[in-house]
Amino acid sequence: MINVTVWGENRHEQLEPEVAKRYPNGMHGAIAEGIEANLGEAVTVRTATLDDPEHGLSEEVLRGTDVLTWWGHAAHAEVSDEVVERVQRHVLAGMGLIVLHSGHWSKVFTRLMGTSCTLRWRSEHDRELLWTVDPTHPIAQGVPHPMVIEEDEMYGEFFDIPTPDELVFLSSFSGGEVFRSGCTFKRGFGKIFYFRPGDQDFPTYFHPGVRKVLSNAVEWAVTVRPERTGPVLLRYDTEDFYNGHGYEGALDPDKQQEAQQ
Amino acid sequence: MINVTVWGENRHEQLEPEVAKRYPNGMHGAIAEGIEANLGEAVTVRTATLDDPEHGLSEEVLRGTDVLTWWGHAAHAEVSDEVVERVQRHVLAGMGLIVLHSGHWSKVFTRLMGTSCTLRWRSEHDRELLWTVDPTHPIAQGVPHPMVIEEDEMYGEFFDIPTPDELVFLSSFSGGEVFRSGCTFKRGFGKIFYFRPGDQDFPTYFHPGVRKVLSNAVEWAVTVRPERTGPVLLRYDTEDFYNGHGYEGALDPDKQQEAQQ
Amino acid sequence: MINVTVWGENRHEQLEPEVAKRYPNGMHGAIAEGIEANLGEAVTVRTATLDDPEHGLSEEVLRGTDVLTWWGHAAHAEVSDEVVERVQRHVLAGMGLIVLHSGHWSKVFTRLMGTSCTLRWRSEHDRELLWTVDPTHPIAQGVPHPMVIEEDEMYGEFFDIPTPDELVFLSSFSGGEVFRSGCTFKRGFGKIFYFRPGDQDFPTYFHPGVRKVLSNAVEWAVTVRPERTGPVLLRYDTEDFYNGHGYEGALDPDKQQEAQQ
Amino acid sequence: MINVTVWGENRHEQLEPEVAKRYPNGMHGAIAEGIEANLGEAVTVRTATLDDPEHGLSEEVLRGTDVLTWWGHAAHAEVSDEVVERVQRHVLAGMGLIVLHSGHWSKVFTRLMGTSCTLRWRSEHDRELLWTVDPTHPIAQGVPHPMVIEEDEMYGEFFDIPTPDELVFLSSFSGGEVFRSGCTFKRGFGKIFYFRPGDQDFPTYFHPGVRKVLSNAVEWAVTVRPERTGPVLLRYDTEDFYNGHGYEGALDPDKQQEAQQ
Repeated sequence: MINVTVWGENRHEQLEPEVAKRYPNGMHGAIAEGIEANLGEAVTVRTATLDDPEHGLSEEVLRGTDVLTWWGHAAHAEVSDEVVERVQRHVLAGMGLIVLHSGHWSKVFTRLMGTSCTLRWRSEHDRELLWTVDPTHPIAQGVPHPMVIEEDEMYGEFFDIPTPDELVFLSSFSGGEVFRSGCTFKRGFGKIFYFRPGDQDFPTYFHPGVRKVLSNAVEWAVTVRPERTGPVLLRYDTEDFYNGHGYEGALDPDKQQEAQQ
Repeated sequence: MINVTVWGENRHEQLEPEVAKRYPNGMHGAIAEGIEANLGEAVTVRTATLDDPEHGLSEEVLRGTDVLTWWGHAAHAEVSDEVVERVQRHVLAGMGLIVLHSGHWSKVFTRLMGTSCTLRWRSEHDRELLWTVDPTHPIAQGVPHPMVIEEDEMYGEFFDIPTPDELVFLSSFSGGEVFRSGCTFKRGFGKIFYFRPGDQDFPTYFHPGVRKVLSNAVEWAVTVRPERTGPVLLRYDTEDFYNGHGYEGALDPDKQQEAQQ
Repeated sequence: MINVTVWGENRHEQLEPEVAKRYPNGMHGAIAEGIEANLGEAVTVRTATLDDPEHGLSEEVLRGTDVLTWWGHAAHAEVSDEVVERVQRHVLAGMGLIVLHSGHWSKVFTRLMGTSCTLRWRSEHDRELLWTVDPTHPIAQGVPHPMVIEEDEMYGEFFDIPTPDELVFLSSFSGGEVFRSGCTFKRGFGKIFYFRPGDQDFPTYFHPGVRKVLSNAVEWAVTVRPERTGPVLLRYDTEDFYNGHGYEGALDPDKQQEAQQ
Repeated sequence: MINVTVWGENRHEQLEPEVAKRYPNGMHGAIAEGIEANLGEAVTVRTATLDDPEHGLSEEVLRGTDVLTWWGHAAHAEVSDEVVERVQRHVLAGMGLIVLHSGHWSKVFTRLMGTSCTLRWRSEHDRELLWTVDPTHPIAQGVPHPMVIEEDEMYGEFFDIPTPDELVFLSSFSGGEVFRSGCTFKRGFGKIFYFRPGDQDFPTYFHPGVRKVLSNAVEWAVTVRPERTGPVLLRYDTEDFYNGHGYEGALDPDKQQEAQQ
């Protein structure tokens, strides 16, 4: 059983009637339904949004989350640094993370990538074709080659990300731009998938192919490690390879200082 | 002419007499001398330390720096977030960065990597052998295979970094541990090299092979791009591929919010 | 159910009494037993050797093989080019391949890599420590970090292979050498794992950790694609993305010539 | 001074009058002129073709070649295996190799890649846009982003190559297909660049942007190693890291057998 938390910013749905009409259960609702439709009893899906206390991402929620999906756009800056750090810590300890579309510019993603995650864009009804360049990747199974999305926002290169560990999908747009649309990254003990399609102005999250990719990605992102603990800095005596000791807590600057003295 | 800024924390040298004796001009001094000895008139090397105003890394200094080297250890937490963000911004805009030894746990490096950058360690007079696994890499030229460092601190795997773009060197230690000792990463328009050897308790920065690697890395890290500007998010009209317009400033959260609305 | 074929050269066992004593069922027998011991009813394991007709690797056998393991050493040159080409074709069409130890210099491996696959070596009772550098990789699960192999042949860098898609294990030896001991490569639709430990002069294939790695690798190497067909060159009309036509058979030079005329 | 050998199949030019008219000095002539126009006195460029003795690629010619460019199409099968093996040996020993367009299916390239190197294609006057995804790569300097090629043959994914070490360019076509158009690979001590644009039916090799890429690639592909010797398999005694002894000649199967006995 995979525990999935679908996080949605949920602002466009509140502010723009046409988005609310397009996504009557919210974009997060459409994403959650797509995953449930494909994975059925293999998943438990809950949703969380920006306006929930702690954005719905308390320590307890994250501890119980195998895979977190992230969609944000208009309010990246409103996400609290504390929650961002918490999400990062859980990813490094093994939680899967799927970053969707405009989530490329979220604090969570830019912090995990270390780059600006900028790109070129245009919202003008381009047709998107999504091509598979890694046909043996689990995330690409059962996905048309190419997948046709009749209308979507355009994202184009240069996309300022670290070189992905695996490049799974490339998109072209009717205007001629190209984009690395499906990318995997390992960070710490966590697996991250960035997936480009999806926009508040288009019904992308009802597209069966997009839903298939999201569902494959959920299954792929679950760690095979048995426990939720992050990498630590430890001292090891000569010939004692298994019993590290010393300071822990890599992300706490106060302890970092002590640890290596 | 390459403008190099050698940044040193310079705390051990002030607090521990034996370190001051080992490195009479500071560790930063020894690093700077090694680069000058190898590259001569091709470089201008200046040093900067934690206790300088703005840690010696003002906007003006960074703008005039082609390659920055970073050594820190005991006082990572004292480096101001403002300077860290400034360094990151310049790296993404094309400044080369060479992170040395215990700099693995610096704010600058962990921010650019997005991971904990933790590892295992022991300071017990291990012999280090540094092996080249990418023999055509410019950083490996003129470096013995293996390079022998008679005594040095041990760093061992697992080293929690993103998969490097290029793995240049691997180290083994007499205790049996191994480490990815020479790793390259591209981030934004900048080139980053992490190099493991070097410690306050050993005279590593006087080792001719270590100095050769540092000097090769300085030459390698200089960008081939003509100007110091970072990646930006821009909107492009259909069929107008060259004239982006819109919001800039990827690292400013306030602008990020506006930019995609 | 995974169909595994364990291929063994089986020459040392016939020519050297001490090897026959060490591996009474042949090295291939020990490898097969280790996989069966770990995977039980999930696998069907058969063995094949050099002296079998067609080296035991007929078209029919390969068509029924999900994962092939390969150990050879003294008689690489005796493997027929026809069988090598057949194995390559099946790998490109999705058969998993696990290349073991001295198999690094086999025709099968060098043909799939395109490089010399040379290295440095010494058979002098070195202790090997095998360290995990990709702790979330399925092949590394349940494997001690480090795995200690009390005595084994030494292999050291430079190992002339293409940069692996994933670097899973690094070895150090008591003599100080290091080696990229666990490497994955995708070629065509097939997944390849190279694993270093294992020698006719040491009982390595009875080591529980080595057997665990082999068994993990068998599970990992099974393709997720539903059919055994290789990539082909096809012509596609404009806007007809799914119905390619033209010449097939990339590995037949006669057809290659016709295909692009 | 860089010694460049431009190899051309030179069959279309002899058999098809319109190709001869388009490329009056042969396609190899146009390629050579483009490199000379950009690099001037820094290069010495010679050409060689299929119908020359030993295809113009004798041991002596290759020994004097820093970078070889390869264009073939209709007659891949006529290239002798002996010359293919010789080219491979020189690449592994450090000769740079630039494979152009339909050279993707040459014996030289498929042998170095180990895969089928198949793809989808269409020759129907598509417009090609070539986008840079690695803006700090030397091969991308001075190249428009995107580069527009008004008419060219289409190549589309899936392109069956190993994951490139570096992905420099992506192409889109007006029909909607995408392609990994600029890819680097290290093999042995040699550097390889595959570049997609260029066809006998279009004047692609007169395009200033294409010529700039070819010229950048020539400079990039020159090895930094001082001598032309390939990787070898050698035995090393304990603690004698620098004096290997034993058998050499990795690509000679007879010696391979002896070497590891």
